[in-house]
Amino acid sequence: MKTYKYPSPKEWTEITERPHLDTARLNKTVNDILTDIKSRGDEAVKEYEEKFDNAKLQHLAVSQEEIDEAVRSTPKELYDAIMLAHGNISRFHASQHIETKKIDTTPGVTCWQKIVPIEKVGLYVPGGTAPLFSTVLMLATPAKIAGCKDIILCSPPGADGKINPAILTAARIAGVSKIYKAGGVQAIGAMAYGTESIPKVYKIFGPGNQYVMAAKQLVSLHDVSIDMPAGPSEVCVIADDSSNAAFVAADLLSQAEHGIDSQVLLITTSEHLAKDVISQIDIQLKALPRHGIAAQALGNSKIVILKSKDEAISLSNLYAPEHLIIATDDYDELAEKVVNAGSVFLGKYACESAGDYASGTNHTLPTHGYATAYSGVNLDSFNRKITFQHLTPEGIRNIGHAVEVMAENEQLSAHKNAMTLRMSEIKH
Amino acid sequence: MKTYKYPSPKEWTEITERPHLDTARLNKTVNDILTDIKSRGDEAVKEYEEKFDNAKLQHLAVSQEEIDEAVRSTPKELYDAIMLAHGNISRFHASQHIETKKIDTTPGVTCWQKIVPIEKVGLYVPGGTAPLFSTVLMLATPAKIAGCKDIILCSPPGADGKINPAILTAARIAGVSKIYKAGGVQAIGAMAYGTESIPKVYKIFGPGNQYVMAAKQLVSLHDVSIDMPAGPSEVCVIADDSSNAAFVAADLLSQAEHGIDSQVLLITTSEHLAKDVISQIDIQLKALPRHGIAAQALGNSKIVILKSKDEAISLSNLYAPEHLIIATDDYDELAEKVVNAGSVFLGKYACESAGDYASGTNHTLPTHGYATAYSGVNLDSFNRKITFQHLTPEGIRNIGHAVEVMAENEQLSAHKNAMTLRMSEIKH
Repeated sequence: MKTYKYPSPKEWTEITERPHLDTARLNKTVNDILTDIKSRGDEAVKEYEEKFDNAKLQHLAVSQEEIDEAVRSTPKELYDAIMLAHGNISRFHASQHIETKKIDTTPGVTCWQKIVPIEKVGLYVPGGTAPLFSTVLMLATPAKIAGCKDIILCSPPGADGKINPAILTAARIAGVSKIYKAGGVQAIGAMAYGTESIPKVYKIFGPGNQYVMAAKQLVSLHDVSIDMPAGPSEVCVIADDSSNAAFVAADLLSQAEHGIDSQVLLITTSEHLAKDVISQIDIQLKALPRHGIAAQALGNSKIVILKSKDEAISLSNLYAPEHLIIATDDYDELAEKVVNAGSVFLGKYACESAGDYASGTNHTLPTHGYATAYSGVNLDSFNRKITFQHLTPEGIRNIGHAVEVMAENEQLSAHKNAMTLRMSEIKH
Repeated sequence: MKTYKYPSPKEWTEITERPHLDTARLNKTVNDILTDIKSRGDEAVKEYEEKFDNAKLQHLAVSQEEIDEAVRSTPKELYDAIMLAHGNISRFHASQHIETKKIDTTPGVTCWQKIVPIEKVGLYVPGGTAPLFSTVLMLATPAKIAGCKDIILCSPPGADGKINPAILTAARIAGVSKIYKAGGVQAIGAMAYGTESIPKVYKIFGPGNQYVMAAKQLVSLHDVSIDMPAGPSEVCVIADDSSNAAFVAADLLSQAEHGIDSQVLLITTSEHLAKDVISQIDIQLKALPRHGIAAQALGNSKIVILKSKDEAISLSNLYAPEHLIIATDDYDELAEKVVNAGSVFLGKYACESAGDYASGTNHTLPTHGYATAYSGVNLDSFNRKITFQHLTPEGIRNIGHAVEVMAENEQLSAHKNAMTLRMSEIKH
């Protein structure tokens, strides 16, 4: 880990820089697959599944029997853990329901918003060695609470043609409507355009590799909405002498084990704590099965020693981390000053893995500095706010002339005339 | 206008299809300009302003004197109209403030969202013959109410090097922090990357021509967030025998005058009304200064006669119009069934121009079917929801084991270990 002690403003910029992400070089490959899915549908999806996942599929849809079987085969301990997490995620996202207000902006002019769920959403859950059933919970649970009618899920099968049972179990618990065996670019294309088996959706959610990210961006330009752009996962920990070095080390390592491109940043006002964290990392790293990956990610990681907590928060706000852990005793005071972050963990017991799995908050969060402009996935992500308005003759009397004047000044005579006709009518 | 009487399901698809929008062919040109802005900053912006707007600029920033002068030169009638509109837009968007809740998802695990404004936003307002000062109000007013710190605005100057005074006046009233003379792709690039004069922002809002749209999409892939993808403006009117044919015709023409690619759709259960609307359009069209544009847009427009109101709402929901006017007496009943639309206008007096200018609702709305997944611009567009969580030892006891089991099953040992360490500590 590279250590910066009292860095200069120029070094602040260096510290907060992300690796350049450019999926443009993949666009040709990805676009070819998307075009093929668009024109040949299921047949093309099946061919790519055979090519990329070594799976020969008769049907893309997962049957009820397959789901029943998966639920039966899920160990009780895991089933219970998924149920517990689902309960907390449900409670937190249900608490995000809001009531909108109907107001008279002026007498006779009533305006309001109505919250309406997106009818059709598509969730993508990657395959690979580790089945990301937690992501199923994070996406399907709020979709169900929002009231989305069709919640479909695509995930790549193994060479045996089956999706990991934990993914199917989580999907059943969270209320997914229909599950399909499709991964990678072909899954994104199928949900964006629709095939014989897989319905077209209006918004696609979920993580994936660079190809999946590129495919989501390409389809988002014309065909469908997406949750947010994605980059490597990140954590920033703010710590001081009151922090527990072993806990801090464990949190940094949790992030580092995600992948060799994971971003790990420790900001501290204590050189002593920094040293202790480094020793603890050495100890804990050895015990990790994924220590190769974690060690490589730590190679790009940074420790920054600053003079004050105010500076620490400023640097964190400039970085805009996906996850921010404030591991100091005065976390309440610092939390007030957070402006840019995806999800914030307060105090020594709020480890990132609590929020990754079971506290109730969502783990689909903005990376790569996008926290400056994006929220993480939440109930809003599955809703739209449609505006409504109603005017009475009094309303026309109150705003009619202003509309006429403004329309005339924007040289839009038909806009003006639509109001003039109403104004004339109410005079009679 | 093409009339469909009791269309078949295949014709429903045809009716709801939009013209194919593909800005990809512009990408090379747009990308070259963006790259140039990124590397050469102000100098490049000035060169493009000279090339595209015939404006030789010394400074890009608009001075306080220029704004003072613009406000003084704005006719009182227009100033008052802008103030009235600003008041209504402020009241409606301020009513969208919400309180978030802090909840215990389980004893000892507290989660909440905090609403935080986006710090830096950039508004783009096109130039041309008609100054879109109403768009300034629609974007800057909610940005100010949300509490965005830096609200910058770019708009192209005329050949005299000045921005239209109505735009500057609206910007002053709505609370824009700083205004710059820059249009087109160069304005989008300047706000996405920052130049010596124009600061980089986190989110760009506003309409524009195809080049501006392509530029917004390109910069949104890596550098900045944008409000939403854009297409030609649209209206769908649902009418029956209770509707006023002259009002309906005026509303259709308001949309048609926007541009030759405007989308106009009348859905009615009454053949009689359809005929009256056609006659009224003939009469009103002649009186319009922009009748050439409107006539051409009407050439692509559609009248659909259906058997029931339920069918009418179904077709409208399938189309997902930017603007939906329900011009029937039973608008309340129909409004309940609206699922996909940007902004809905209820009853004979709620003309689209009321919402375009002064009722208080926003006029930056999803086109091209994006209403299936996007909301129009509203207070949320300028905020993020950051999640926070705090755990006590009791919280660890309640969710710790579930986190361990889930992390283990996802093969993320460091995630598990971060929780195990906390569980061990509280046992002591």
